[in-house]
Amino acid sequence: MVNVGIIGGTGYTGGELLRVLAFHSKVEVMAVTSRKEEGKEVWEIHPYLKGFYDLKFVKPELRYFEDCQLVFTAVPHGEAMRYVPQLLDAGIRVVDLSADYRLDKETYEGVYGHRHEGWRDAVYGLPELHREEIKKAELVANPGCYPTSTILAAAPLAKMELIESVIFDSKSGITGAGAEPTSFTHYPNLHEAIVPYKIVSHRHYYEMVQELKAFQEDIRIHFTPQVFPGSRGILTNAHILLRGELEKEELEKIYKEFYRDSPFIRLQEEVRLSYVRGSNFCDISVNVGGERAVIISAIDNLVKGASGQAVQNMNLMLGFDEADGLMFPPLFP
Amino acid sequence: MVNVGIIGGTGYTGGELLRVLAFHSKVEVMAVTSRKEEGKEVWEIHPYLKGFYDLKFVKPELRYFEDCQLVFTAVPHGEAMRYVPQLLDAGIRVVDLSADYRLDKETYEGVYGHRHEGWRDAVYGLPELHREEIKKAELVANPGCYPTSTILAAAPLAKMELIESVIFDSKSGITGAGAEPTSFTHYPNLHEAIVPYKIVSHRHYYEMVQELKAFQEDIRIHFTPQVFPGSRGILTNAHILLRGELEKEELEKIYKEFYRDSPFIRLQEEVRLSYVRGSNFCDISVNVGGERAVIISAIDNLVKGASGQAVQNMNLMLGFDEADGLMFPPLFP
Amino acid sequence: MVNVGIIGGTGYTGGELLRVLAFHSKVEVMAVTSRKEEGKEVWEIHPYLKGFYDLKFVKPELRYFEDCQLVFTAVPHGEAMRYVPQLLDAGIRVVDLSADYRLDKETYEGVYGHRHEGWRDAVYGLPELHREEIKKAELVANPGCYPTSTILAAAPLAKMELIESVIFDSKSGITGAGAEPTSFTHYPNLHEAIVPYKIVSHRHYYEMVQELKAFQEDIRIHFTPQVFPGSRGILTNAHILLRGELEKEELEKIYKEFYRDSPFIRLQEEVRLSYVRGSNFCDISVNVGGERAVIISAIDNLVKGASGQAVQNMNLMLGFDEADGLMFPPLFP
Amino acid sequence: MVNVGIIGGTGYTGGELLRVLAFHSKVEVMAVTSRKEEGKEVWEIHPYLKGFYDLKFVKPELRYFEDCQLVFTAVPHGEAMRYVPQLLDAGIRVVDLSADYRLDKETYEGVYGHRHEGWRDAVYGLPELHREEIKKAELVANPGCYPTSTILAAAPLAKMELIESVIFDSKSGITGAGAEPTSFTHYPNLHEAIVPYKIVSHRHYYEMVQELKAFQEDIRIHFTPQVFPGSRGILTNAHILLRGELEKEELEKIYKEFYRDSPFIRLQEEVRLSYVRGSNFCDISVNVGGERAVIISAIDNLVKGASGQAVQNMNLMLGFDEADGLMFPPLFP
Repeated sequence: MVNVGIIGGTGYTGGELLRVLAFHSKVEVMAVTSRKEEGKEVWEIHPYLKGFYDLKFVKPELRYFEDCQLVFTAVPHGEAMRYVPQLLDAGIRVVDLSADYRLDKETYEGVYGHRHEGWRDAVYGLPELHREEIKKAELVANPGCYPTSTILAAAPLAKMELIESVIFDSKSGITGAGAEPTSFTHYPNLHEAIVPYKIVSHRHYYEMVQELKAFQEDIRIHFTPQVFPGSRGILTNAHILLRGELEKEELEKIYKEFYRDSPFIRLQEEVRLSYVRGSNFCDISVNVGGERAVIISAIDNLVKGASGQAVQNMNLMLGFDEADGLMFPPLFP
Repeated sequence: MVNVGIIGGTGYTGGELLRVLAFHSKVEVMAVTSRKEEGKEVWEIHPYLKGFYDLKFVKPELRYFEDCQLVFTAVPHGEAMRYVPQLLDAGIRVVDLSADYRLDKETYEGVYGHRHEGWRDAVYGLPELHREEIKKAELVANPGCYPTSTILAAAPLAKMELIESVIFDSKSGITGAGAEPTSFTHYPNLHEAIVPYKIVSHRHYYEMVQELKAFQEDIRIHFTPQVFPGSRGILTNAHILLRGELEKEELEKIYKEFYRDSPFIRLQEEVRLSYVRGSNFCDISVNVGGERAVIISAIDNLVKGASGQAVQNMNLMLGFDEADGLMFPPLFP
Repeated sequence: MVNVGIIGGTGYTGGELLRVLAFHSKVEVMAVTSRKEEGKEVWEIHPYLKGFYDLKFVKPELRYFEDCQLVFTAVPHGEAMRYVPQLLDAGIRVVDLSADYRLDKETYEGVYGHRHEGWRDAVYGLPELHREEIKKAELVANPGCYPTSTILAAAPLAKMELIESVIFDSKSGITGAGAEPTSFTHYPNLHEAIVPYKIVSHRHYYEMVQELKAFQEDIRIHFTPQVFPGSRGILTNAHILLRGELEKEELEKIYKEFYRDSPFIRLQEEVRLSYVRGSNFCDISVNVGGERAVIISAIDNLVKGASGQAVQNMNLMLGFDEADGLMFPPLFP
Repeated sequence: MVNVGIIGGTGYTGGELLRVLAFHSKVEVMAVTSRKEEGKEVWEIHPYLKGFYDLKFVKPELRYFEDCQLVFTAVPHGEAMRYVPQLLDAGIRVVDLSADYRLDKETYEGVYGHRHEGWRDAVYGLPELHREEIKKAELVANPGCYPTSTILAAAPLAKMELIESVIFDSKSGITGAGAEPTSFTHYPNLHEAIVPYKIVSHRHYYEMVQELKAFQEDIRIHFTPQVFPGSRGILTNAHILLRGELEKEELEKIYKEFYRDSPFIRLQEEVRLSYVRGSNFCDISVNVGGERAVIISAIDNLVKGASGQAVQNMNLMLGFDEADGLMFPPLFP
């Protein structure tokens, strides 16, 4: 049994880490923090977990994590950088779920608009692209939910340098906006709606650029995020204007080959958010008409888009099987 | 053309007054207030009304209403009592959409937990019960949304003194909770949910007691409110334990007779919230099995449960036809 | 008072014609047909319209329409062509809501896969593009819901020949799939979902090609439709790869100019389906980032996307004001 | 490893059995039937299970189950009675998810309106009430979803004979209506709706009578079911008119005591469908005001209300721990 800890346990990704780790037989959550809810039982904040944890929230202090081999930081960007260096210096490996270590330092500071005060080198934690580096990493930067959804949809074609332009039109469940009530998450504002936002300027864009341009330098990338009326899930339409025409069979072959060793990528004839809900899968379908391929990907934003992927990274870092404790079925319908 | 005004124009009931009055050919909205949004165009706060009003929000000061014959107060309880006496003293008739004048003073102070600092006598504005008094009233207290839904479901049987006990199990759309984001209105907290609240202690209960006991003194009344995943509507199951058994035909006859002159009550074989959405109708179906009748009523909480009923009251007060400007069809599906 | 009729009155567009025409003070629905529900009252099939029509469904026979100046055909494609020639030959003008007269005959037969057995020349009924021809037309082909949504989003830039490629990513409410229960409309299949379908092959595509290529011959057009969890509405993201960069202000000017005389087009800072729900408006916002403009349009698929637009066409054909009986406010929230 | 089989594997309860059993380390699904989909892979019909089963649907013939110790019958009532006697005669134990063995023969024939052609004695499979009998049973009749939800809410008070009348007002997710598209499951008919049905005459009522009258003979029981806009879950308000008043603390004590040994019953301060979604828990909260207690229960209708409970029964029958393979966390939010 390996001891792990969670810094930031009351938000959606913190709660989801607790849910996902409840399936895992090889790790035990030793400590979970909350400055606001310190002293309360986990189930007082997450009543759905009643019966699963006998654990109280503690303050985010290093001493609680001394016996942990790995810690998840699930706090907002700008805040993670305060904890990560301490943990690493204490010899504890880290999977950071915030944006703090996903980009290079300069890009980060430009995009997020503040100085990075705790820089360390990290591996970008998309196992399907960086499996071997993750195994050896001390610090893994868990990808954003949209980048997970979009990069996985386009990477195989980018690797073949077959993309002229790609336009990612993504629709996310509202949990992506966090557990704090805002005008954005106000029920009547999302009911029977599709709400585009940051239409040409979302910060996750830069992760897509970083990862896809590593495959194909001259790719043109566009991204528009939206929320749809639902709690979980991201469905991405990757509209890809191709260099030259391709048959559907050729596309399928490219994707199968690329994801041959990836247990959480499933090629499906049709993708549905309900086919991946609650699970760590990323389902993908390929479609093509003339010069345009439409690659559709579906993930659960809180699992493959956040906490499940973090556990997948943890598995690789700790030498477990990549799928340990993560191969639970989706909740359909 | 009669001039009217609105105090409190940015919330859901204020916005809905503006929407409903846009259908009305005999009145014109002269002034609408907002302390917070003063100076802004109506359509800046309510973009869906772009093109309907050429009007800016003003401060809630008496001078803006001097040429109005009637003013709607659509501010929270406790606040309405600050404006109503001023308006009445200036000779302006008032329909108050808050709770401030619905109960007798003593009951009000007990239920709402603060002193009433602007008491005036008012008529309870349920036209189906108090049509004639409303016509002559200077001040009409527009009923709560739940009381509208429940009282209309039970009044005909209460009048016949046929009720042993009634249990109102009501489900409301979330707009009843207002336009301010809270944990209650947070999308993931309502998605795929039915959320009971104030399960045995909602303040609207006292309006039901006041109106139904006026018909039948010894009636036993119980009420449990809930929200359901939707914006608009209240569906009430009135579970009525009867004194003696009744056939469905007898029930129908009682309801038809009671609501003979009420243009907004429709008896339906089946009620659906979608059959009344956006309209001022209250649809009712009667069902009976042994000792229990189940009377089901459906309203749009923002129309018949608030702003539409306020305009219905206005029509009566101003000598118009009760249905003027209100006989627009529901939005189905 | 002008008499009009409806062939096909039980589906969603038929019901919506009845709802919309209930607002209209200058026309009266004289006859409405249903082969299946012949003899039933309108409100037996559309209970939400109880109180609005005293009219029974009749068989689709010419004699019921002899006193009509105009008839709406709201039956499936392939079926409308059986009624339209008869009506025209009897001197009755027609607005056809099916696809039967939207394309040229040859394209129609290729796209819909069967012979056209009742060909007549028609005007494509998008008033914002063909206002003057509609006024004089005997037969108006009411546009599809997606083409209304997409063409209105791109036409101003196509007219300026500024488009390199346009990718329409559209999301529709499920009423677009009709009133018959299918696997597609089955609640659990749409709940918490975004469902792409006919991803590179929807038939409405050819209307977009016809109308936009008339402005700019060399435009490249792509289209992917989806349904979202809601009853009504189409939100389209028109991702436009521009010829040369444009500022947001320039874009706004182009759109304002193009739609100067169009009462149902509203430029908004942000578009929301809830801002147009139940109304005949098409709201549009313009956004731009580098080489890509994102024009977002929102309509109610049953109103501006079908029955409301049909009445708008009727208004033009009968010499009424374009907005007569149609300028009712949206139902927000 | 124990071999089990499923007769009827394509519906929602069949699919859910497959999902739940995928968590179970002590049993293996050997055969699953479908007359219609014979020969297809499980994942072709249930794409969300891709990767979990390497199994093809077979015809419902006895020979496929000869090596099974236990078979689940997940076919409609009236149909199960054709398979159950055969299986029992072959020495195979059965958990029947249909209604065929829940009531005594005479009541069954009256309520379901047809003769019972394969009668066998069965144990009513509500483990919280009949744990010891289930362990020894050859045939267990898995309870209906509504009876599970209602009986668990009222049993502790019925056992104390403290109930004057109980009115169950239950709201179910639409998966309870099955996987076949109907007018009832048609999206626009459920969107933003609460739909009461069989308001005083649902067949599940008789299970409630059977189980609760066994505790308290003179209890008066009423039941009204509804569907709400969601896939999964049943929330029941048990409005209980008490014999004598009780404090909340006394109620809590009664419930805690009654469910002391029941791992899937959780007393919560507040119940939410999202706290039990996807899990086998039944969460209960107790509330009281004067003569009325309101006991609220929440289950996932497909898990504790069907397939999860069936596995719970299987665990007891096979001598496993009651919670084996079932103690997975709910999917919140």
